[in-house]
Amino acid sequence: MTDYDNFIGRVKELSLIGSLSGLMGWDQETMMPPKGGKLRSDMMAFLSSQAHKRMTDPEMGGLLDSLESQDLTGEQAANVREVRQSYDKATKLPAELVEEKARHKSKSLQVWQEARSENDFEKFKPYLEKTVELTCKTAEYYGYEDNIYDALLDIFEPGMTVSQLDPLFSGLREAIVPLVQAVGESPNQPDTSFLDIGKFSEEKQREFSMKVAESIGFDFDAGRMDTSTHPFCSGAGPNDVRFTTRYDDEFPFGCLYGVMHETGHGTYEQGLLEEHEGTPMGQAVSLGIHESQSRMWENMVGRSKEFWSFYIDEFKNCFDHLPSDLDVDTLHRAVNTVQPSLIRVESDEATYNLHIMVRYEIEKQLVSGNISVGDLPDFWNSKMEEYLGVTPPNNTKGVLQDIHWSMGAIGYFPTYTLGNLYAAQLYAAALADDPNIPNKIAKGEFTALLDWMRSHIHVHGSKLLPADLLRQATGKDPSSDDFVKYLKSKYTKIYNL
Amino acid sequence: MTDYDNFIGRVKELSLIGSLSGLMGWDQETMMPPKGGKLRSDMMAFLSSQAHKRMTDPEMGGLLDSLESQDLTGEQAANVREVRQSYDKATKLPAELVEEKARHKSKSLQVWQEARSENDFEKFKPYLEKTVELTCKTAEYYGYEDNIYDALLDIFEPGMTVSQLDPLFSGLREAIVPLVQAVGESPNQPDTSFLDIGKFSEEKQREFSMKVAESIGFDFDAGRMDTSTHPFCSGAGPNDVRFTTRYDDEFPFGCLYGVMHETGHGTYEQGLLEEHEGTPMGQAVSLGIHESQSRMWENMVGRSKEFWSFYIDEFKNCFDHLPSDLDVDTLHRAVNTVQPSLIRVESDEATYNLHIMVRYEIEKQLVSGNISVGDLPDFWNSKMEEYLGVTPPNNTKGVLQDIHWSMGAIGYFPTYTLGNLYAAQLYAAALADDPNIPNKIAKGEFTALLDWMRSHIHVHGSKLLPADLLRQATGKDPSSDDFVKYLKSKYTKIYNL
Repeated sequence: MTDYDNFIGRVKELSLIGSLSGLMGWDQETMMPPKGGKLRSDMMAFLSSQAHKRMTDPEMGGLLDSLESQDLTGEQAANVREVRQSYDKATKLPAELVEEKARHKSKSLQVWQEARSENDFEKFKPYLEKTVELTCKTAEYYGYEDNIYDALLDIFEPGMTVSQLDPLFSGLREAIVPLVQAVGESPNQPDTSFLDIGKFSEEKQREFSMKVAESIGFDFDAGRMDTSTHPFCSGAGPNDVRFTTRYDDEFPFGCLYGVMHETGHGTYEQGLLEEHEGTPMGQAVSLGIHESQSRMWENMVGRSKEFWSFYIDEFKNCFDHLPSDLDVDTLHRAVNTVQPSLIRVESDEATYNLHIMVRYEIEKQLVSGNISVGDLPDFWNSKMEEYLGVTPPNNTKGVLQDIHWSMGAIGYFPTYTLGNLYAAQLYAAALADDPNIPNKIAKGEFTALLDWMRSHIHVHGSKLLPADLLRQATGKDPSSDDFVKYLKSKYTKIYNL
Repeated sequence: MTDYDNFIGRVKELSLIGSLSGLMGWDQETMMPPKGGKLRSDMMAFLSSQAHKRMTDPEMGGLLDSLESQDLTGEQAANVREVRQSYDKATKLPAELVEEKARHKSKSLQVWQEARSENDFEKFKPYLEKTVELTCKTAEYYGYEDNIYDALLDIFEPGMTVSQLDPLFSGLREAIVPLVQAVGESPNQPDTSFLDIGKFSEEKQREFSMKVAESIGFDFDAGRMDTSTHPFCSGAGPNDVRFTTRYDDEFPFGCLYGVMHETGHGTYEQGLLEEHEGTPMGQAVSLGIHESQSRMWENMVGRSKEFWSFYIDEFKNCFDHLPSDLDVDTLHRAVNTVQPSLIRVESDEATYNLHIMVRYEIEKQLVSGNISVGDLPDFWNSKMEEYLGVTPPNNTKGVLQDIHWSMGAIGYFPTYTLGNLYAAQLYAAALADDPNIPNKIAKGEFTALLDWMRSHIHVHGSKLLPADLLRQATGKDPSSDDFVKYLKSKYTKIYNL
């Protein structure tokens, strides 16, 4: 057996453990009876210790060393590069730090839930301070060149740095803040009154959104859709992809756009190549690229006029209490309502990124020691006022709203905005290759767009770093230009700016 | 760490792997999308190789040797005894035989499916010959005292032997064959015409049977009920028990009695003690005892007049097309229809055991070399005529009907009949302790009976061997007396014998 075969055998075993964890996680959110939680934690901990043991096996390190000095194909080298990243991350941290983080995380998560529901930031403060301390320790062990925050970004978006993000985000902010203001001042606001005259049944919402997911190209023979409190996409592998949604009988767009979002994630997973299954070459490359797929189908496609010009009849058939004169224009404007608000997960396409930037600024300053955890409520509120023009009435609706920090996921938020920027850049490139895509969408044909994503993104798995993949697909560096152009063009028409 | 702590740590890890396999198996039958099968086989094979590796670890053998010479509590000794059994079974077989059996099983299963659908016994014959050969080799490696078949029985019902089964089964046969004949000749046959006048909706069947399961005491906060082609009960542990059913809109009793059967299995699992979770002391002791729980709720309770006197109104409310004058007597007689037939899984409570005895006689003769695989179709048909008075028109409805032999499960069938005998013996003992149980059932109260099973069977896990557990619970050796008495008494009344 060659070193490479030995290496791949180990990598595939790790992937099987990942598939088991994926399905067990899915089951926990969708199927598990309430009393099953205790045993489930033991099962998940067992899987994660098995994965950690295999990943940190000194023989894995030896194989990586040996393979890095061998003459490998591009695909082999990509697999070695990606596993090297994971191996280094898994071995650089001392066992005591890993254990301390795991213990702290479960306690911190619990305290955050209490603190949020009690609007008591002081209760959460010592836990967040500890999280920041452990996160900084982790970053120091991982190492970085310029900025300690780079070590954290790299966990979630390999290769991303503050020096790349700062100009990207500030350019974006400079364009969006005035755009959002202009939209707010426009006398030409959308009419959403058709939402107030009846209920949208769960059954019909499910039927309509599944039809959309299927038309986009999600293969229900290789996946399924269920219900959970928080929508997500998970599963065992490209032939067993499982996403979820939730239903609100007063607002059908939460389900629909949730499903289109997860369908984006799901088609990416289903588009990975079977020949590379179980290796990085057959795995999605980053959270940012993943989010580009979900946000593209949710927003660029799902909130387009073309989409609604095709689906309006079906939508009105499904929900037959809607006014018969409801037209495409009204629908299209309604699903593109912009309204600065307090809660990130409820925010619209334009203001969403301003929420992310509040968090990005805070995280950067926190880990570099420029501000302390005690400063957070004031810092948060002043940034919200500066970027969005709104001030939270309390910490529950402010600094305590997100789960991420309670879980130690500092450095994660920027991938959401990267996903939006990548989505616009990829969509613009697809349109440059095939200007007929919007016309096809208006006929309910999504194949051209999906195929473009398949050949430019999905089939490449983790062969390239995310930014390089984007460069290869679009011919340009990651930039906010296409996203800003897209938003400006859309809102100028809708709000008659 | 003591030897015993080390041992228990290993046993609990094995149990976690079992929980993962349990849920993955459940998911495969209930949730998995069609294309997920290939990866699922890899995941299942990974789990089973991980379990085998841990079970055959020489350090496990060393710990067992050491613990067997130590002074242990009764519970500790039971855990050691049970794991010793599994360790011996796992280590006695040479690796090549294990591999050959696994390879042969998957091929044989496939050929059996083809042979059954094509009514072509000759096609299956060489595979069954190989199965018998591999089974006999296995039995020789496991070892036995009197009869080679004892080694096979012991796999499924620890401690059971031909010398115990032969008198049990022949006594049973001598009582049942004439009983079935008398029933068949009775002019007093049940009236099932109420089944022919409308459809029984899946939704209502589900509602009614879940209500029954819940009343019996199945805890839906610690389990769930889904749909699958073949009903089963599985799960991750006592707090996460999952059973399935299926629906036939022309015949509501298939679903109802399927659910009551699986509820029996499920309440046994839920009644195992949490303090012993993950060790044999917290696991069901045998297939026979398990089947006693399912058959008792399905038949002794579910087909009793008391059950229907309580549930008839609810049943008629659920299925409102039923004649308003449908009475308890008609219902009770209808669900106790006895009719010799060709197919085991469709057979009634009385003839079922005759089907098992046909298989038992064949298996015994096959492994001792008294008959060859080529003799099977004729031997099968003549035994069917002898025991049941019916002769299969072809092998598909005869010797090819069951999946068991194609999977190499020779020695399994007797546990079904043992389950029936144990069920009657346990029910009689419970009635002796509390003669009011039938009156309570007639009020829809099942707690007294379930509690008796909890304290006499469930909480003991695998502390005793099955026959010893039965002796402790009933004060008697395993016997067919109670079962025969129960059947005679019931059918004498129903068929006016």
